[in-house]
Parts: sequence; C-alpha cells; structure tokens
Amino acid sequence: MTASTPVAFEDPQYREAVVDLLGVIAYGEISAFERLVEDGKLAPSLEDKVAIAAMASAEFAHVAPLTERLAALGAEPFGAMAPFQGPIDRFHEHTAPADWYEGLIKAYVGDGLANDFYREIAAYLDTDTRDLVVASLEDSGHSAFVVDRVRKAIAADPRLGGRLALWARRLMGEALTQAQHVAAERDALTALLAGGIDRPGLDLAAIGRMFTRLTERHAERMSELGLSS
Amino acid sequence: MTASTPVAFEDPQYREAVVDLLGVIAYGEISAFERLVEDGKLAPSLEDKVAIAAMASAEFAHVAPLTERLAALGAEPFGAMAPFQGPIDRFHEHTAPADWYEGLIKAYVGDGLANDFYREIAAYLDTDTRDLVVASLEDSGHSAFVVDRVRKAIAADPRLGGRLALWARRLMGEALTQAQHVAAERDALTALLAGGIDRPGLDLAAIGRMFTRLTERHAERMSELGLSS
Repeated sequence: MTASTPVAFEDPQYREAVVDLLGVIAYGEISAFERLVEDGKLAPSLEDKVAIAAMASAEFAHVAPLTERLAALGAEPFGAMAPFQGPIDRFHEHTAPADWYEGLIKAYVGDGLANDFYREIAAYLDTDTRDLVVASLEDSGHSAFVVDRVRKAIAADPRLGGRLALWARRLMGEALTQAQHVAAERDALTALLAGGIDRPGLDLAAIGRMFTRLTERHAERMSELGLSS
Repeated sequence: MTASTPVAFEDPQYREAVVDLLGVIAYGEISAFERLVEDGKLAPSLEDKVAIAAMASAEFAHVAPLTERLAALGAEPFGAMAPFQGPIDRFHEHTAPADWYEGLIKAYVGDGLANDFYREIAAYLDTDTRDLVVASLEDSGHSAFVVDRVRKAIAADPRLGGRLALWARRLMGEALTQAQHVAAERDALTALLAGGIDRPGLDLAAIGRMFTRLTERHAERMSELGLSS
C-alpha cells in the first residue's frame, strides 16, 4: 500500500472487502467476455457477431485496471478472483443461451443487473475505489444495438416476446441465487454494506430500498426491450 | 471516396485490390480473436487465460479502423470480408489446437506469418492504406509471453519440442494452401503485386525473394521458441 492509501484501509476488514469486490468484478468481466464471444457464434450475420465481440472487448478492457489496483493493494489479483469462479461459472452454466436472442437478453439484462448492483455498493467505498468501480461498469454504448435487434425480432414474431420475458426472469433468479452463495461465504464483503470507520452503512430498511431500486431498473430495461417483467 | 483519395484509386482494379486486402485482414483479425478466446479455454491458469484474451482483444481493436476505411472507400465492410470467410474458417478448422501449447504456437507462428505477409504487400500500397495496414499488424508486446511459456514447457519436457516443431510445419503448410486458394480466386489482389499506375510491382524473381524473406522470419520465430524449423 502507498502513502496515499485512504484511511478506510486501516480497517483490515475493509481492505479484505475491497479485494473481494475488485476480484468478483474482474472475474465477472473475464467470464462475461468469454461468454459473449461464445454467444457470438450464434449471430445471424458477421455484422452482428462483430457487434457482440465489441461488447465483449469493452468488458475485457476493464480487467487490467482492476488487476493493477489489486496488485497495488498487495493482493495477488488472480488469487483475489478465485473465490468467485465457482458461483460465476455456475451462473453461466445454468444460463447458456439457446439462441442468439437469449444471448442478447443475457448480455443486456444480466450485465445491467450486475452493473446496478456494483454501482449501489460503490456508494459505500472510498473515492478512489469508487471511481475505479464506476469506470469499470461503463456502458460503451452497445446496448442500443441489443434493444434495436430484440425489438425488431419481437415485432416480426410476437411469441418470441413471451419466451424472452420468461428467460429474463430465469436470469434474474439465477443471479440472485449465486449472489446469495457469495454473500453467505464472504463475510467481509457482506459487512461492507453495514459500514465501518469513516464509512456510512445500510440498515435493513435501506437494504430493502436498494433491492427495490434494482428491481425497478430491471423492469425499465425489460420495457425498453418491449418485454414484460 | 473523398477529394483526398490518392491517384492510385483512379485505377478501379487497385481500389478492388485494396477492398479485398482490407477485407481479408479484417476477417483474419475477427476470426483470430474468436479462436484465441476459444483456445483460452485450454489455459492452465486464469492468469494465462487472461494473457491470451489480451492478445485476442488487441487483434479485435484493429477491426474498427479497417471497417471504417472500407466504408470510406464506398465498400460494404462485411461484404468485403465475405469472400475470405471460407478459406480462413477452413484454415482454423484444419488447425484446431489439441492443447494449450499448440494454441500458443498457432497464435505466435500463425500470426507472425500473416503479419509478415501483409507487411510485404503493404510496400505496394498508397501511403494512407499502407499506414493503416501496418498499424493493424502491430504486435502489442504479447509475444514475449508466448516465448516464455513455450520455452519453459520444452525445458520441462523436451519431447514437446519435437511435437510442436511438426505442428508449426503443419500450420505453415495449411496457411500456404489457403493463401493459394485466395490468390487463385481474387485476381485484383494478385494483380496488386504486379504493380500499376504510379505503383511499382514485383517480377517473379522479386516474388521469390519475398518468399525467402518470409521463410527466414518464420525460422527466426521458431528458433526464438527453441524449436527447429
């Protein structure tokens, strides 16, 4: 750690929580990258494949700043990611898209949900870490592509809308399941939300409001896609 | 085309050749990207997987400038790539790596060979196109990683060296086979090397010397890896 390390890091549990958080985000980006490229094989055209590959590459570009910060905090970056490989890999195994449109929904809805969640957590971090986390969640303007493709496909085949709405619900359920596994196993990460030295925390009512916000934003994304949530 | 289009483009065959060249390079980068990510599944560690994914992303970053130039030349970028999908896909089908080390050799030797070849062709292009082609071949410093991993593996298991040397020979043979298919079908591209208005060309002796240079550089890469060529 450098001389400019914020005071919050004097709390070893806070440092542990930040290492966990950067580790889970980094592994999430790596595996999202891999899965998006894999899903690109389902693309109906080379142009669509390149569009999804561009989303994948944008995710991957966030990995290096996260591993650099982990190293600066004295953590071994790949060791920091290791505890999250199981839950994240399981999420992807349980949500392998059956076709191109399921892949698009997963990229848009799954990514949006994870980003909203990390952005909520970011509010409880020191400024440097918060800026890093928020930067790594940047949407590179690719979501307009997904919305356009999905809306057109539903217009052409309205039954698709019903199937994709169910699929999005399954994604949400699977994400919550795996998030619960992580929360149960990573005490420092969970404690982060409870606050500490120089950091405000959340009480149960506030956690409830946070989940309400996450659900509302999910519903907004669904209606942008023309799907019921 | 804009007012600043070089005089060489007044020759419709030259324009056609440049569209072909940018198309084949772009599709080569897209498919190299996909295959590298696929090969990353064979990585022995998350760190190695991230290293190969970084090579993949660096390739993909070259695609956008190529499609932009194709569009500026009045070509439909994905249409320009289409004639090369068959040969390049076949190259990859015939050279699917059986393990992590075959994947590394393919990334290093295959990419090196393609880059040398395009760099040779670049000498016969107008300045703008040449700069674009050369920029899209930039090695982003990832090859040191491949050399390090392969040399260590051969030191630990010398028999691996023999197998990988044979594998590299197969890659070279398969690349030449597919390049010949392309040359036989794309007259404008082949004619590019013969020269034209304001552009010097190659006679047969010069083509021979070009292949000698390509073979020599291939041998240099092999010996850097500790392999006989």
